[in-house]
Amino acid sequence: MEISALQKARYQYQPKLPGILSGKIEEIALSLGEAAKSIADDTALADLFKHTYGKPIASFVKGKNNKISRPLTAGVILSGGQAPGGHNVIAGLYDGLKKGNSASKLLGFLGGPSGLVEDKCLEFTDAIIDDYRNTGGFDIIGSGRTKIETPEQFAASLETAKKRNLDAVVIIGGDDSNTNAALLAEYFTAQGSSVQVIGCPKTIDGDLKNEYIEASFGFDTAAKTYSELIGNIERDAASARKYWHFIKLMGRSASHITLECALQCRPNVCLVSEEVETKKLSMDQIVEQICSSIVRRAANKNNFGVVLVPEGLIEFVPEMKKLIKELNDLMADHSDEISKITNFIDQVYWMDRHLSIESSTLFKTLPPEIARQLLADRDPHGNVQVSRIETERLLIGMVEKKLKELKNAGDYNGKFSPLAHFFGYEGRCAFPSNFDADYCYSLGFTAFVLIASGLTGYISSVRNLTASADKWIPGGIPLTMMMNMERRHGSSKPVIKKALVELDGKPFKTFAGEREKWSVETCYHFPGAIQYYGPPEVCDQPTKTLVLEHS
Amino acid sequence: MEISALQKARYQYQPKLPGILSGKIEEIALSLGEAAKSIADDTALADLFKHTYGKPIASFVKGKNNKISRPLTAGVILSGGQAPGGHNVIAGLYDGLKKGNSASKLLGFLGGPSGLVEDKCLEFTDAIIDDYRNTGGFDIIGSGRTKIETPEQFAASLETAKKRNLDAVVIIGGDDSNTNAALLAEYFTAQGSSVQVIGCPKTIDGDLKNEYIEASFGFDTAAKTYSELIGNIERDAASARKYWHFIKLMGRSASHITLECALQCRPNVCLVSEEVETKKLSMDQIVEQICSSIVRRAANKNNFGVVLVPEGLIEFVPEMKKLIKELNDLMADHSDEISKITNFIDQVYWMDRHLSIESSTLFKTLPPEIARQLLADRDPHGNVQVSRIETERLLIGMVEKKLKELKNAGDYNGKFSPLAHFFGYEGRCAFPSNFDADYCYSLGFTAFVLIASGLTGYISSVRNLTASADKWIPGGIPLTMMMNMERRHGSSKPVIKKALVELDGKPFKTFAGEREKWSVETCYHFPGAIQYYGPPEVCDQPTKTLVLEHS
Repeated sequence: MEISALQKARYQYQPKLPGILSGKIEEIALSLGEAAKSIADDTALADLFKHTYGKPIASFVKGKNNKISRPLTAGVILSGGQAPGGHNVIAGLYDGLKKGNSASKLLGFLGGPSGLVEDKCLEFTDAIIDDYRNTGGFDIIGSGRTKIETPEQFAASLETAKKRNLDAVVIIGGDDSNTNAALLAEYFTAQGSSVQVIGCPKTIDGDLKNEYIEASFGFDTAAKTYSELIGNIERDAASARKYWHFIKLMGRSASHITLECALQCRPNVCLVSEEVETKKLSMDQIVEQICSSIVRRAANKNNFGVVLVPEGLIEFVPEMKKLIKELNDLMADHSDEISKITNFIDQVYWMDRHLSIESSTLFKTLPPEIARQLLADRDPHGNVQVSRIETERLLIGMVEKKLKELKNAGDYNGKFSPLAHFFGYEGRCAFPSNFDADYCYSLGFTAFVLIASGLTGYISSVRNLTASADKWIPGGIPLTMMMNMERRHGSSKPVIKKALVELDGKPFKTFAGEREKWSVETCYHFPGAIQYYGPPEVCDQPTKTLVLEHS
Repeated sequence: MEISALQKARYQYQPKLPGILSGKIEEIALSLGEAAKSIADDTALADLFKHTYGKPIASFVKGKNNKISRPLTAGVILSGGQAPGGHNVIAGLYDGLKKGNSASKLLGFLGGPSGLVEDKCLEFTDAIIDDYRNTGGFDIIGSGRTKIETPEQFAASLETAKKRNLDAVVIIGGDDSNTNAALLAEYFTAQGSSVQVIGCPKTIDGDLKNEYIEASFGFDTAAKTYSELIGNIERDAASARKYWHFIKLMGRSASHITLECALQCRPNVCLVSEEVETKKLSMDQIVEQICSSIVRRAANKNNFGVVLVPEGLIEFVPEMKKLIKELNDLMADHSDEISKITNFIDQVYWMDRHLSIESSTLFKTLPPEIARQLLADRDPHGNVQVSRIETERLLIGMVEKKLKELKNAGDYNGKFSPLAHFFGYEGRCAFPSNFDADYCYSLGFTAFVLIASGLTGYISSVRNLTASADKWIPGGIPLTMMMNMERRHGSSKPVIKKALVELDGKPFKTFAGEREKWSVETCYHFPGAIQYYGPPEVCDQPTKTLVLEHS
């Protein structure tokens, strides 16, 4: 395998571990706290998780651990979208297992959770692991989005675990995958099996976090990669002085990524979906907010700027949410009829006749390409694929229209040349930052200690992340502790609560305190490319979000 | 000014200089070679450049230079699109001037060549320069695309130069701007003025190069930034295993950027405009080439891949060139009539009736959004804005159609989920790589020595760039030496010859020797983010293009 110079150099990087994990392995002793409760709905959850609810929080202390050197066999699964550092979770888990007992084995299930259901796996060796240390991507075993939910899938998973003599399964994933891990842990125990299940908090979206999970891995690297690009574009905007760049950023429903990039780069405008929802902002109000910056900057002869747009925005605009729901319902109820209309114009007319007056009015004001996307791009269930809607272009179209009105009214006298960007795939598989490389390795190593300690239904937790790695605090949190009951597809389900941006949290409040200035002045900040070597203030800083949340 | 940690750290970076320039300033002596000839059309050029043609190549040797310590006043202009390192050219020039004599002054003309014409400038101080060392962007004085071409503009430029007591003007720009520098040098001399003009080779496109200019600055950083992103996307593609990414890359007519990125990242398909033109490939043939990779990869269950597309591609496809020319002519000849047709469908019908049969057939096979772009996005002269055409989406549309045919014929049985990207603004203002930081600083310092040596009509040249910086060879090349006569807007003009990708050059031949393998197998290479600190094999490598051209 011929590799790049950076990849070769990164192989040599030794990720840092929390102090307690870097000493002698047989001196990492388990300390259990009091029985933990879920964040809400404890009766319902205690009932659903009869065998795994109410477990204590686990932490590690210096002491004697007799169990840690047993030979173990574990399996690991990568679940859902890529996030930088996944390979290091596996490396940390592998190194921990081997440090505990060189006869221990780690299997990798291929292509996500379906690898466990269908018993498709490989056994890791030093050679395989060494090829992936400190690299981005999930290509070591691939990932997948299969959910283990049918009785057959649960049974098949247990079958595989037995056949492979597994002591434990580690599931690396986001909120959904960790909910799935909790269900699997409960199922295994209920079936009298001793196979343990441990989760690991992964997602660039940053929406899997709470008191015990300070950050999901990958968020740091992805946000820094996007910030590099946004900073470069800002510097280009300030040099060329003639373009308004509208930049949509990945991150699903949550705006954590977008907010972090705003804190890093200080754009002129940054939309935050959670604020749009709370304040019930209409598309018109959002467009007015952007135009206000454009108009005031034009008055200072600054006909350039940068606008950040979170991927999930339009789902949070009440009127758009209503329109999308109506479109979904119409498509479901009249699919035969609609499928016969092949012409876009006729589709628009048909929708116009069937939508509510409010939705129809909104639909007709959308740029034609966006209207087409709303009608054309449907998922296998016939629903509009919101993530495929080019919100950045939608906003450009609506802003252009609004500026024309303002110009006619004599309230705007600038030039508006917009450019659209979308960043997502550029950051999900970057070489993990030193922070993510260390954090992921620690999460994997911690997962090993949780397994060796005989725990199940826990998520690997490493806290105190704004301190240096040796001061990080590893441990385990019962997955059910992070859960509540939510309505999903018409019924009440146990789920790990998604962490959206909190408007009274420090990251948002810091941004809100600065944005008025940023919207008129040019306050750009250029973070540059992620550095793996060099001064620690450049290479080893956590995200601003994390620092603010802990200040 | 609050700045990022990397920017702060980069301020401390001391760019490396060629050995001859890093010693005592009064020991840098000028050595002149034989009178140089232009690459072609020497009679015509000698006639056009009566006062500046036939000058000798200049090099520097250790000796005695009595003129170098005179107090000098120079002006500098940033011309055209941004390229990483522009600020370092200015810093090198400033430091050189001050090292020669602390009373020397450097003025920066604002907003490009128009700053000279309109006498808009600032005087650089240590404080200003220090704020911009080793940073990206052209925001220190801004850039512009004004060409100095009318007699009034030439006269005004001389007026400003006299008023400001300039000894010299340094123009930092691409082939056009350096052609302009040659004309200005000739004009000043012809007018009996002693004001000198020196050019500097800038452009991320990499198309200003020849025997004496081994690379234009900015190419290194821009290509490495795009390669970082392409590598990340490749790793994502190989992990998710479900998307084909079509990535268009900036670079104007030349495919140097795209070719360098292919050599860095080994994508499945990389189109090269110069090959398309030489082999007279049709859109159909290009689409077939892409589909061939898709079909063969699908047979191995690899329904993912990466395709690189140079920005200028469609201008090199003979049939597209013809269509664009016909559209431009129709728009020019019937502008009134066309402007009355506001409806896209009716515009298409009208064009269909007026285009030649070949062009009309092609036009109708284009995806509607592309047809709309061809009709809607015109420059101030009414011409189609080729750079605005989303070639990556055009190709996706045509590939989808072709794959449907192949599927119906039973020749393809894969899944095709395409995603489109365009990278350009992300790389033009990145922090310059160590290579560009050193190269630009050396170019600026060299420009100072050329000025101090009394030369005019020269371009700053630093050669032997694949060696370590201390072995680089600085000097000056008469601008007219790189020129020939070309037809522009119907008349014969003196221009610096644009360097396109040479199909018998080593970079292309190396790519051509590998691409068959890359198109079927997954040979991705992940360069990662530009590193400024760390091992030299990671931080201080020139581009593969440069290394291959010098091997």
